[in-house]
Amino acid sequence: MSYDLWYWPTIPGRGEFVRLALEAGAISYRDLAREEGAGALAADLAVPRDMPPFAPPYLIADGLTIAQTANILLFLGERHDLAPGNLAGRLRVNQLQLTIADMVGEAHDVHHPIAGGLFYEDQKPEAARRAEDFRANRIPKFLQYFERVLLHSGDWIAGDRWSYADLSLFQLIEGLRFAFPKRTASVIRDCPKLLGLHEAVATLPELQDYLASDRRLPFSDGIFRHYPELDAA
Amino acid sequence: MSYDLWYWPTIPGRGEFVRLALEAGAISYRDLAREEGAGALAADLAVPRDMPPFAPPYLIADGLTIAQTANILLFLGERHDLAPGNLAGRLRVNQLQLTIADMVGEAHDVHHPIAGGLFYEDQKPEAARRAEDFRANRIPKFLQYFERVLLHSGDWIAGDRWSYADLSLFQLIEGLRFAFPKRTASVIRDCPKLLGLHEAVATLPELQDYLASDRRLPFSDGIFRHYPELDAA
Repeated sequence: MSYDLWYWPTIPGRGEFVRLALEAGAISYRDLAREEGAGALAADLAVPRDMPPFAPPYLIADGLTIAQTANILLFLGERHDLAPGNLAGRLRVNQLQLTIADMVGEAHDVHHPIAGGLFYEDQKPEAARRAEDFRANRIPKFLQYFERVLLHSGDWIAGDRWSYADLSLFQLIEGLRFAFPKRTASVIRDCPKLLGLHEAVATLPELQDYLASDRRLPFSDGIFRHYPELDAA
Repeated sequence: MSYDLWYWPTIPGRGEFVRLALEAGAISYRDLAREEGAGALAADLAVPRDMPPFAPPYLIADGLTIAQTANILLFLGERHDLAPGNLAGRLRVNQLQLTIADMVGEAHDVHHPIAGGLFYEDQKPEAARRAEDFRANRIPKFLQYFERVLLHSGDWIAGDRWSYADLSLFQLIEGLRFAFPKRTASVIRDCPKLLGLHEAVATLPELQDYLASDRRLPFSDGIFRHYPELDAA
């Protein structure tokens, strides 16, 4: 059994949260747009389906098309034991994943506060204002929340091993460090549990091959972008 | 058994997606901030918890605190049969709920494109630009997507009876009609399946008492807001 993943081929973006789960879970998959190009993704998106995706990423599994990052991860978590199986653990991991998704959306909207279809250059003054609020209020609020959640758990978010939400939290921190290196450093310094979780995922034996491979895409001009003028300690 | 719901007491907001599911499912609950006021909600948010909510709404059920609207609905859907029980149906309803949540977030950011902590009056020029894009691109894209999903289903989103995502889609259309009456009318006119679903939920026998009661809050200055200057056909 192998899954087909579809996501934009040149950015980590939301696809990376799915890739990390697939890789850490040693789950067989093809990354189709990376094999066949963005044109193949555009063509696949136009295929009529019983349940069409609104946007990538989406996963084709056993004939089902599953979209929305947190929904794909919910499926993988249940099917491949990448999250606790009990009710409290499942809801906890899903709740955290949705909160991570909220912060990812906000990190994107910092450089695109007016419209995703316009260039950053067309919305720079608005981006500067939104970045100021994101740095002053949102980065501390989200990171301190995740720290607070970790204070009530062990080394991992839920249970005694990693879940897909641990992997996503690692990726979120990676993205924030790329996009807002100064501000992220000054906030995360006071979040020892979050720093410990980031390090634990970065050194996870299950991920070492992947993280060193060219399957792991660097950040560039996707959701997490580094514009020096939008960052400050 | 009864649940405790916590949400801001004066707006429908994200809490209303949960209320509609509780009411249509004839599930016993207390709406605590409406009984005890916003101060009680603020106090409850400060209570230390194993899994703290990032923000309302949250539901206290069997000792668990469950937050994130789509996560609460996933729980209620499984526990009270408000969604199909099979894998494809569960994922379909969750995927759709997450796409509804994305549009709700965007509808909010039209009037608050810079910062949720500032007043609309502090970000009016930015809101005017974002509204232009929301009307031209996002309202058609989302509504035509939901219409396309409904073309592949019967009268309801998944299966032969309503699910919580059907209720949420009704509420989303209600909110859009309040906030952007002109633009919503001109786009939804070409979405007959969506109009049919809205009508089917509006006339659902299970909801008639609720919709006529004062438990059903009117839209005002919450997520969906009507600023005439942000709307146009």
